[in-house]
Amino acid sequence: MNKNTDIQVGILGATGYTGRELVRVLSNHPKAEIVYLGTSSAQGKPYGFVYPELLGSPLGDLIMEDESSVPEVDVLFCAVPHGIMASRVAELLARGIRIIDLGADFRLKDPAKYRQWYGEGLDLSDPDHPDPDNLSQAVYGLTEIYREDIAAGSLIANPGCYPTSALLPLIPLLANGLIEHDPIVIDAKSGVSGAGRTPSARTHYCQVEDNFQVYGIDGHRHMPEIEQELSFAAGASICVSFTPHLVPMVRGMMATIYTRIRKDSKVGETDLRHCWQNAYQDVAFVRVMSPGVWPMSKHAFGSNNLYMQVRVDERTGLVVIVSVLDNLVKGASGQAVQNMNVMFGLPEKTGLEMLSLWP
Amino acid sequence: MNKNTDIQVGILGATGYTGRELVRVLSNHPKAEIVYLGTSSAQGKPYGFVYPELLGSPLGDLIMEDESSVPEVDVLFCAVPHGIMASRVAELLARGIRIIDLGADFRLKDPAKYRQWYGEGLDLSDPDHPDPDNLSQAVYGLTEIYREDIAAGSLIANPGCYPTSALLPLIPLLANGLIEHDPIVIDAKSGVSGAGRTPSARTHYCQVEDNFQVYGIDGHRHMPEIEQELSFAAGASICVSFTPHLVPMVRGMMATIYTRIRKDSKVGETDLRHCWQNAYQDVAFVRVMSPGVWPMSKHAFGSNNLYMQVRVDERTGLVVIVSVLDNLVKGASGQAVQNMNVMFGLPEKTGLEMLSLWP
Amino acid sequence: MNKNTDIQVGILGATGYTGRELVRVLSNHPKAEIVYLGTSSAQGKPYGFVYPELLGSPLGDLIMEDESSVPEVDVLFCAVPHGIMASRVAELLARGIRIIDLGADFRLKDPAKYRQWYGEGLDLSDPDHPDPDNLSQAVYGLTEIYREDIAAGSLIANPGCYPTSALLPLIPLLANGLIEHDPIVIDAKSGVSGAGRTPSARTHYCQVEDNFQVYGIDGHRHMPEIEQELSFAAGASICVSFTPHLVPMVRGMMATIYTRIRKDSKVGETDLRHCWQNAYQDVAFVRVMSPGVWPMSKHAFGSNNLYMQVRVDERTGLVVIVSVLDNLVKGASGQAVQNMNVMFGLPEKTGLEMLSLWP
Amino acid sequence: MNKNTDIQVGILGATGYTGRELVRVLSNHPKAEIVYLGTSSAQGKPYGFVYPELLGSPLGDLIMEDESSVPEVDVLFCAVPHGIMASRVAELLARGIRIIDLGADFRLKDPAKYRQWYGEGLDLSDPDHPDPDNLSQAVYGLTEIYREDIAAGSLIANPGCYPTSALLPLIPLLANGLIEHDPIVIDAKSGVSGAGRTPSARTHYCQVEDNFQVYGIDGHRHMPEIEQELSFAAGASICVSFTPHLVPMVRGMMATIYTRIRKDSKVGETDLRHCWQNAYQDVAFVRVMSPGVWPMSKHAFGSNNLYMQVRVDERTGLVVIVSVLDNLVKGASGQAVQNMNVMFGLPEKTGLEMLSLWP
Repeated sequence: MNKNTDIQVGILGATGYTGRELVRVLSNHPKAEIVYLGTSSAQGKPYGFVYPELLGSPLGDLIMEDESSVPEVDVLFCAVPHGIMASRVAELLARGIRIIDLGADFRLKDPAKYRQWYGEGLDLSDPDHPDPDNLSQAVYGLTEIYREDIAAGSLIANPGCYPTSALLPLIPLLANGLIEHDPIVIDAKSGVSGAGRTPSARTHYCQVEDNFQVYGIDGHRHMPEIEQELSFAAGASICVSFTPHLVPMVRGMMATIYTRIRKDSKVGETDLRHCWQNAYQDVAFVRVMSPGVWPMSKHAFGSNNLYMQVRVDERTGLVVIVSVLDNLVKGASGQAVQNMNVMFGLPEKTGLEMLSLWP
Repeated sequence: MNKNTDIQVGILGATGYTGRELVRVLSNHPKAEIVYLGTSSAQGKPYGFVYPELLGSPLGDLIMEDESSVPEVDVLFCAVPHGIMASRVAELLARGIRIIDLGADFRLKDPAKYRQWYGEGLDLSDPDHPDPDNLSQAVYGLTEIYREDIAAGSLIANPGCYPTSALLPLIPLLANGLIEHDPIVIDAKSGVSGAGRTPSARTHYCQVEDNFQVYGIDGHRHMPEIEQELSFAAGASICVSFTPHLVPMVRGMMATIYTRIRKDSKVGETDLRHCWQNAYQDVAFVRVMSPGVWPMSKHAFGSNNLYMQVRVDERTGLVVIVSVLDNLVKGASGQAVQNMNVMFGLPEKTGLEMLSLWP
Repeated sequence: MNKNTDIQVGILGATGYTGRELVRVLSNHPKAEIVYLGTSSAQGKPYGFVYPELLGSPLGDLIMEDESSVPEVDVLFCAVPHGIMASRVAELLARGIRIIDLGADFRLKDPAKYRQWYGEGLDLSDPDHPDPDNLSQAVYGLTEIYREDIAAGSLIANPGCYPTSALLPLIPLLANGLIEHDPIVIDAKSGVSGAGRTPSARTHYCQVEDNFQVYGIDGHRHMPEIEQELSFAAGASICVSFTPHLVPMVRGMMATIYTRIRKDSKVGETDLRHCWQNAYQDVAFVRVMSPGVWPMSKHAFGSNNLYMQVRVDERTGLVVIVSVLDNLVKGASGQAVQNMNVMFGLPEKTGLEMLSLWP
Repeated sequence: MNKNTDIQVGILGATGYTGRELVRVLSNHPKAEIVYLGTSSAQGKPYGFVYPELLGSPLGDLIMEDESSVPEVDVLFCAVPHGIMASRVAELLARGIRIIDLGADFRLKDPAKYRQWYGEGLDLSDPDHPDPDNLSQAVYGLTEIYREDIAAGSLIANPGCYPTSALLPLIPLLANGLIEHDPIVIDAKSGVSGAGRTPSARTHYCQVEDNFQVYGIDGHRHMPEIEQELSFAAGASICVSFTPHLVPMVRGMMATIYTRIRKDSKVGETDLRHCWQNAYQDVAFVRVMSPGVWPMSKHAFGSNNLYMQVRVDERTGLVVIVSVLDNLVKGASGQAVQNMNVMFGLPEKTGLEMLSLWP
C-alpha cells in the first residue's frame, strides 16, 4: 500500500455493493489510495472477512473500522442508507474532508421534497432537512452536466442510477428546446444489485429468476430527482411518467424514453443526434451509438460508459430514446470516482478506462 | 391412447416450442387426443427422439410423420414458419379439417400488409397473399373478443403473443371510448422462448444472460396486428408506438402501456376497472388484479391466464396499464386449445385449468 | 369446490414453496379436495393474499386458518420446519388423521441421530426424540421402495429431495449386490427453491446468479438419511461422501454418483441397467433413459419423474450414475401426493401425470 | 495508441470470446500494445463492428485484418479452432514471432493422442500431428508449474480451462506423494462461455437456463490433457474419472475433486494445506482459502485468480478438493497474458491485478 498517491480515500459503508464496487474501481486508480473502510457491522475485521476473494491482497487485508471514526482523508465516499449523512456532513466538512455522497440526502434541493420522499422513518422535526445550509451548497454530481461546480465543490450528491440513465440523454434535448415538455415517459429497467445487499422477499432468487416485475408505480424516489434536473434544464417545471421494472439480472439498466419533437420545429432525428454529439463531444463516458445500432444493457457491464440511441417514429410523431449503463458503475461508484477526478484536477478518465466484460 | 375422446387432433410443426407446449396442454385434455405429429426433420422417429423426457409415455412414443401427410383429423394445429400455411389451408379445409394456425399467415386482413410485413423471402407474385379467399374467411383467434366467430369458424388465426398482451386490456377501453387514440405507447418485454427453437446469435445463452435488450424498434411484425385489432375496436384508424424488449428469462411477457383518459370525459381509474370487469366478467382467463396489486410475469408461468392492472397518474394525466401472460400458453398454445374448445362446443376452460408454477 | 371427492385434504405450512406446490399438484387431482390451509403468518386471509395469481380461483379464495386448528380431514400434509411435527403427530393420529410429513422429524430411525442432526435449537431433554413410539411406526415414504408399508401406514416420513435422487438409483444396485459399498461418492446439485421461501444472504439473487456454490461440505442433514436407507438396502453399514452444490436455477436437481462394480463379479453396464429395469418395471415415475441419452435437470421440470442413466468407465473401473428430478415435485410435494394415492388405494399416478414443461 | 510499450501484440481469432477477453485484459496492460486483430469473418471492419460497445475507443476503432497477414509482432495470441495452428506455427516461429496458442494443437505431447482426440475432421495423413518437431518443443503454459520453461519458450500451449482448475490443486499433492493415484474423480462444472461464440442447440438460451446438464461423459478432450500433466507430476501413469457439467451461468468454473490420502502415510488436512502453501507461496494468482471458507465460482469472476480449499473426511477417508476460476481469465486469456509476462521478463502480475466483480 505504498503507491505514490496524491489522494487519501475513505469509504463509509464499505461492505455494501456500491462500497465493494468503489474498492474495485479505486484498486485500479493510479492516484488514489484507500486508507479507511468504515463499517457498522464488521469493525476490526479485515475487508476479506466479508469478501473472502480479496483476502491476501492489500485491500482484502485492510482492517475495517467503525463508521464513527473517520480519519483525516482527502475525500470520503459515503455509501450508507439515506438519513445518516444528512446530519454528519457538517462536522466532516468542517474538518476539511471533501465528501462524495452516494446516498440521497443531498440530491433534492427542496427540503420539503426531502421530507416527502425520504422522511418516513426519519425524525425530521423542523426544518424539513437536518442540514439545509449544506443542502443548498451541495453539487449534484452528474459529472457531464455540472463539471465546473463539482471541481469547486466540497459536497457532491452523487446521482441515482435511474436519474443518470434518463438525464444524460434528455438534458441536452430539453436545454436546446428540441423536445416537448409533455409527455415524457420513462420506462426503466434495472438489474437487482440496485436493491442492495440486504436480503428481502423482493430479492429472493426464486422471486426474481424467470420473472419480470414492475414496481414503484405509485411513485419512486428517483422521480423527483429526475424532475428537478429536467426542470433546471428546460427552465420550466417538468412532470415525467416514470415506471421502474426489475430484470432478472445482477447488473445493468436500460431506460426506454418516449417523448415528442417540439411542435412547429422542423427538427428531425439527425438534429437530435447532433445535439447529443455537441453536448458530449469531449466526453469520455457518454457514447452516442452509430445509426441503426441499439444499446443493450450488457454493453456497459463493468464499465463506466453510458450508451444511447434515438429514433423518431414518423408514424406516431414520437421520439424513442434508449440509454443503458451499469447501475453500479456509471450509476453509482464509477461516477463517484469520476467526480473525485474532477474535484482533484485529474483527467476525468483516470482509473476508469476499464473495458466492459463480454460476455 | 384409448381415451374416450371426441376430438382427433393433429399438430404440424410438433418439434418446435409451441408444438411441445401443445403436447403438454393437450396431454391433460379430457376430450382431445393427439393422433398425428407432423415434422419436417424427424419423420419416422418417436416424439421422444426429440424430447427424451417423454419417452415411455404414449405421446413420447408416438411416431412423427411427414408434414405433407396429414390424416383425417378433426382439427389441425399449425405451428410452422409463416409462408407455409398460406398455400396449404385450402386443401385441408376442403377435406373438412378445421385449422388453428399459430403462425401469422391469416392474421392481417389486408393482403397488402401481409406482403409488406411477411413478404420478404416469399414468392408472392400476385396477388399479395396466396389465398385471399380464405384470408377473408379466417377468424382472428383472440378468444375473449371473437368467441362467436371462432365457434363458427373453420380457420382460426391464433394471435401473436405481444398482440394478446396488448389487445385484451386495450380493446374494451377503446370500444367504450374511455381512452384517447393517441398516444398509445406499448413498451413490451418478452422471454426468449418467443424467438423459437432454432439457434441464433440472438438466442445464444451468453448473449441473453445478464442482458436486457431492445429490438425491432424500426418495426416489428406484431405492430400491424395490434393496430388492426385496435382500429376495429375503436372504429377508427389507430397508430401505436410498439417497442419490444428481450428479457433474460425463458417464458413470460409483460406489456407496460401508456395512454390518456379521453379528453372532456370524467373518467377515472375506477371506471377503467369497471369497464374491464364488465368486459371479462364471465371469462376464465383474464384476471383484473385487486387494487394495489401489480402483475409480474411469473404469475402466469405455465398457466393460460392473463393478469392486468391499471393506474391513472393524476400528475401527468397518463394511464399506465400492465398486463402479463405466459407467451407459450395464453400467448400461443393455450389460447389455441381455448379456441379448439370454443370450436367444438366444449366449456372454454376444458383441459386448461392448470395452475401456474411457483416458484 | 364440489368435486365428487373421496379424500378431504389439509395442508400445514401452506404458504411455503412445498405448500404452494402441493396446492398446484392437488388442484389437478380428481379424488382429493383441499379443505384446510394452515398458516402461522396469514390466518384469516385468502390463500391468494400470499399468491395473488390464484385469486379468483377456488383455492386462491380459500381462507387460511391457524396451524393449531386442524379440522377432521382424511390426510394432512405437513410442510412446516422440523421440530414442530415431532410433538404434534400423536394427537393428530389419535384423531384418525393420516399424516404425510414433508419435514424431517420422522425420517431418521435412530433417535440419537435425530438429536445429532436436528437437535440444535430444539428443546430435546430426554429422550432424544419427542415421540419415539411414532418414530418407530413411521414409514419412510420413498414410494417405489416402501409401497406396501405406505399403504398400511398412518404416518409417512416423506423423503428429502437429495435422498430421493440418490436412493432410487442406488438401492436396487446395492440390494442386488452389484456394486461395492465403498466408495460411494454423491456429488449433488440443486436449484435454489430447496432452500425455502425465507429470504437470506444465501438466497439473495445477487449471491446466487452467475455463481456456482458448494455448501454443507462438513455434513449435510440429508447424509444420514441417505446412509440409513442405503444400509438397509445393502444389509450392511454404508458410509457415503455427499457434497451438495447450489445451482443458479429455481427448480431441479442432479446427482452425479461415483462407485465401483463389485469386485470379482462379472457385472457390466448392461447388468446395471437390467437391475434397474427389473426394479422399476411397473413404475410410473422412475425412467431409465435409453443408452447414450443423459438426463438433464430440466427433463423433470414440473413433473413427478426421476430420470437416470449409468456408465461403466472401463479405464478407471468406476460406475458413473446420473439422476435428475424436480426437487419440489418428486423431491417433495409430488412424491407426497404419490404416497397419498398409495395410502388411499388409488392408482399411483392419479393426478400426477402432468408432463414436464419445455422449455 | 501511443503507449510507450515494449511488446507489440497480435491476436488471431480476435472476435471470439477469448479474443475479446484478451482485448479486455491487454487494454489494461502498461507494457503491451495490440497492433493486429486477425479475423476470418470481418476483415476490413473496425473491431467495434463486432463489439459496438468499444467503438470510439482505440481498440474499438482498430481495423481487423485477415488471419493470413500477420505483421511483425513480438507475440501472437492464437484463439482459433484446433487444427489451424498445427500447420501455421512453423512459419511464424521462423519469422521470430513468439506464439501463445490458446487452442489445443500443442497441448498433448503424444502425437497419437492428438490424432485420437482431435483428429476427427482433420486431414492427418502421416504423421499423427502436422508438426511433431514444434510439438516436442512446445511448452505447456500452466504458468505456476512451468514458469522457467515458459520464460525460455517460443511456443506456449496455453492450458484448457478444466485442466487448469484440476491441475493446480492436484499437481503439488501428487508430486509430493500425499495422495493415492486412484481413484481421482474430477466432477467439474463450467459456465457456458467455455463453449464459444458460435450458436448451437446446446448453447441456446432456452436449453441452458433453469437447467443443469452433464456432457462429455464418454470422454472429453480435456481428460487426456489432465492425465498427461498429472502423470508427469506423479512420475507414473494416472487415470482420472472426469465428468464435465454445464451450469446456467456465463463465466466461472468449479472442480470438485475426490481422492484419497496416500495409504500408510500419516498425512492429514493440515499437511495438504501446507503442501499447497509451499508450492504457491510466492504466487499471485493461486489462493488457498482460509480454513472453513469454501470457494464459489463468482469469487473469481473477472479476475485471474484460482481459489481452492480442501477437506479430509475422516468417515470415508476421502479427500474433497474444491477449486474455482473464471474460465475466460485464468482458464484462458488471463493465463495467456500471464505467460506473456513471463516470456518477456515482466513481473507476472503486470496488467492482471484487476479485482473480481462483486456482485
